[in-house]
Amino acid sequence: MTLHPGSASTSDPAGPSAVDLNADVGESFGRWTLGDDDALLPHLTSANVACGFHAGDPLTLRRTCARAVSLGVSIGAQVGYRDLAGFGRRYIDVPAAELAADVLYQLGALDAMARAAGGRVAYLKPHGALYHAVSRQEEQAEAVVEAVVAFGGLPVLGLAGSSFLDVVRAAGLEAVGEGFADRAYLPDGGLVPRSAPGALLTDPVAAAAQAIELARSGEVRSLCVHGDSPGAPQLAAAVRAALAEAEIPVGAFA
Amino acid sequence: MTLHPGSASTSDPAGPSAVDLNADVGESFGRWTLGDDDALLPHLTSANVACGFHAGDPLTLRRTCARAVSLGVSIGAQVGYRDLAGFGRRYIDVPAAELAADVLYQLGALDAMARAAGGRVAYLKPHGALYHAVSRQEEQAEAVVEAVVAFGGLPVLGLAGSSFLDVVRAAGLEAVGEGFADRAYLPDGGLVPRSAPGALLTDPVAAAAQAIELARSGEVRSLCVHGDSPGAPQLAAAVRAALAEAEIPVGAFA
Amino acid sequence: MTLHPGSASTSDPAGPSAVDLNADVGESFGRWTLGDDDALLPHLTSANVACGFHAGDPLTLRRTCARAVSLGVSIGAQVGYRDLAGFGRRYIDVPAAELAADVLYQLGALDAMARAAGGRVAYLKPHGALYHAVSRQEEQAEAVVEAVVAFGGLPVLGLAGSSFLDVVRAAGLEAVGEGFADRAYLPDGGLVPRSAPGALLTDPVAAAAQAIELARSGEVRSLCVHGDSPGAPQLAAAVRAALAEAEIPVGAFA
Amino acid sequence: MTLHPGSASTSDPAGPSAVDLNADVGESFGRWTLGDDDALLPHLTSANVACGFHAGDPLTLRRTCARAVSLGVSIGAQVGYRDLAGFGRRYIDVPAAELAADVLYQLGALDAMARAAGGRVAYLKPHGALYHAVSRQEEQAEAVVEAVVAFGGLPVLGLAGSSFLDVVRAAGLEAVGEGFADRAYLPDGGLVPRSAPGALLTDPVAAAAQAIELARSGEVRSLCVHGDSPGAPQLAAAVRAALAEAEIPVGAFA
Repeated sequence: MTLHPGSASTSDPAGPSAVDLNADVGESFGRWTLGDDDALLPHLTSANVACGFHAGDPLTLRRTCARAVSLGVSIGAQVGYRDLAGFGRRYIDVPAAELAADVLYQLGALDAMARAAGGRVAYLKPHGALYHAVSRQEEQAEAVVEAVVAFGGLPVLGLAGSSFLDVVRAAGLEAVGEGFADRAYLPDGGLVPRSAPGALLTDPVAAAAQAIELARSGEVRSLCVHGDSPGAPQLAAAVRAALAEAEIPVGAFA
Repeated sequence: MTLHPGSASTSDPAGPSAVDLNADVGESFGRWTLGDDDALLPHLTSANVACGFHAGDPLTLRRTCARAVSLGVSIGAQVGYRDLAGFGRRYIDVPAAELAADVLYQLGALDAMARAAGGRVAYLKPHGALYHAVSRQEEQAEAVVEAVVAFGGLPVLGLAGSSFLDVVRAAGLEAVGEGFADRAYLPDGGLVPRSAPGALLTDPVAAAAQAIELARSGEVRSLCVHGDSPGAPQLAAAVRAALAEAEIPVGAFA
Repeated sequence: MTLHPGSASTSDPAGPSAVDLNADVGESFGRWTLGDDDALLPHLTSANVACGFHAGDPLTLRRTCARAVSLGVSIGAQVGYRDLAGFGRRYIDVPAAELAADVLYQLGALDAMARAAGGRVAYLKPHGALYHAVSRQEEQAEAVVEAVVAFGGLPVLGLAGSSFLDVVRAAGLEAVGEGFADRAYLPDGGLVPRSAPGALLTDPVAAAAQAIELARSGEVRSLCVHGDSPGAPQLAAAVRAALAEAEIPVGAFA
Repeated sequence: MTLHPGSASTSDPAGPSAVDLNADVGESFGRWTLGDDDALLPHLTSANVACGFHAGDPLTLRRTCARAVSLGVSIGAQVGYRDLAGFGRRYIDVPAAELAADVLYQLGALDAMARAAGGRVAYLKPHGALYHAVSRQEEQAEAVVEAVVAFGGLPVLGLAGSSFLDVVRAAGLEAVGEGFADRAYLPDGGLVPRSAPGALLTDPVAAAAQAIELARSGEVRSLCVHGDSPGAPQLAAAVRAALAEAEIPVGAFA
């Protein structure tokens, strides 16, 4: 597997001492439950907690942060577009100043939840359509980064090798490249689009094998598994077991 | 004018050295402008900034906090029910755990805006229907107070003499009693309901006179003027001038 | 079982020729799925379709209406408070004119979906906290009824024996009393509160038995089963089978 | 002024007997007022009433429809993206099926308001970012048109000469081309972007002159004035007076 130029391993020459395992949690909203966070969280080292704009009501966020703190799992702000109806998966042409304010608002809101539980927000990861937009649109990438700087600075998690992480580094922030255990890759290091057949690896064995390959490549510091698929906890457990088997140390980056 | 038993002056025997002047700001939302914050803010010592649940989009909040910091005006979190359509003026029977999480979320979000501008959230004031509910419903009062404690503790601004401030004090928080310069009072110290004729004092001279009376009574530490009425800046200026004339010192409580 | 005075059987002396079976459907929202509508709908004669204010995104509503029409199931508007975060289960003190407009808006929106599928909205049923409020607060009951009249008139489904149905009848609308197959009743005909132990009958056999009893009492024209519990389709099938066994005809009232 | 190929005059060879005057109304939301609808409506022949997704709460819509009906002003559905925070001015990459359902939902909701007042929705006009998207993105144009067809068919108002109107005609719907009295045009018939200097003609005399020119060109059947600018009623009155002066008949197209 070849990642884009300027990948994490090049920019962080020392290399990580351990690989991180992250997933999205806290995505329920009121009466609507999504994912099995209770079963998934114990397998993670980093929890991308939704912040209320595309998913996650405040009580869900508070409880999710409390559980993450009690398990020693690092808390990240999974920030997204203001779009509950679209779950943050629809690109929105938000002007930069609005987007920066939206991200800063979400960061502060989640941080209050994390601090009330004895933790803090330790990193940021853009969600859904924003995750993809920040690699294509410098204006939105700059807006997200500006918000993180205004918040006082945090490591930022993004696609390993993406131009977004270059914007992150240019602002003096720590850029953490991730790979996907359960998403099929294109030959150029990009992801097979969700809508294409075979985009998601649902077989835990195949996902675990890809996770090992990604971890050994040295090009990713974090492995992502999707939290909202039915077998997410089993898949995360399989990845974790395979990393232990391969004697690859696992630990949060932040 | 007689205020309810257990008023601020009794509970804060030292008495304030100065009276505070507060008003609601940051209540615009996207395309919709409300109030003339630019003209009003310079007259205030404390700015109750909306937090996004009943009013205030993130960019408005960010800009409002920056302006308050540049003017040396204290920033308070104007928290309310999650109800943009009702502007937070409709009572909602929110269970306590949800309400506490909603308030904590708002506190954190606004604090991030204030800190990005070099300030911080210095106090909390419930808005609209929540302002009234916390004096009638102990469960909601406890929920608001629990959120403030979980946030690390802040002074809480409320109706002088109200039972809400007793709940605030019982939690070990500083309770700050306010009076309304521009609302008519009932003989028992309560407010004439908004829907009744004469509920709002729109004449700056009358409001200034009532402000002086309230300040001299020693029963309020803060005077409130409404920010969303057309003549709000003029009214605040008249109150401020009258206080200067009467040689009553003016200053933020937090 | 004794129902409140003024129950449906008194007001509709002819009695229904068949009993109706209704449940809530269309309550998913964007990424969040709720209930198993595909499995539940074939067992129903009336589908209470959410209208977007407390649940149900427009595409879900459109697809749900299309499926109901194709199955010959009657479509009702499940109207509620504007409260996605609370799923319409939190009482909101909405002024009458606003509530009437909110209900009329929801009726029109759902009717467009139904008509696009070759059907129409055939009745209205208030949801959640509004369902209970209309039996306790005449102002909100009148507002809901005013909206139905403004829409041109529809049968209204509500708790058999409730004062709400009296308000419905007083406006010249058809009032349809329902009983709950899967909720425990109090001796006075009221419902055991959801929060109390045993409030929900999850055993299909017990629910079917209660359904038969309610149908034979002649006091209800429709039987409700809850659509958002995991075993809803099985429960509805059990009720339907028991009605067939007892030779009680089943059919939509509208 | 030259409009794009395929302009309204070509496709509607008979030509309109009168020119229509339209503006956006009903864009207030809860506590937030926008525009001076009471002063503006009497000057219009067609009122583009917001539908609640980007602006307009249900009570505002109901009152606006009632006023339009009482004045004999034609009611159009001003449909937009689900984006109150952005006032529908931010492009959203909504999949076609979702967008069609969103538009159909808005059409039905507004029609219920219009019918309750004795009128009906007589046409559709996309708003804000959707107005522009339907001329650039065939998928979204088709989605809007599909919703109108599913609703039973209505005339559709759009930019004279735009490709959107071709999509409208291809579906067998009546396409009505409009020109802007108060927007500066580019030499190719496009509009000067809002962000550019001089984009808005605020001088009533200049706007009236441009209106006359557009009306005489025979290429537009409706003239649009913006409803949310401070001098909107005066500008509409000036346009109306100039049309009378020029003996150009004025009348609704639908």
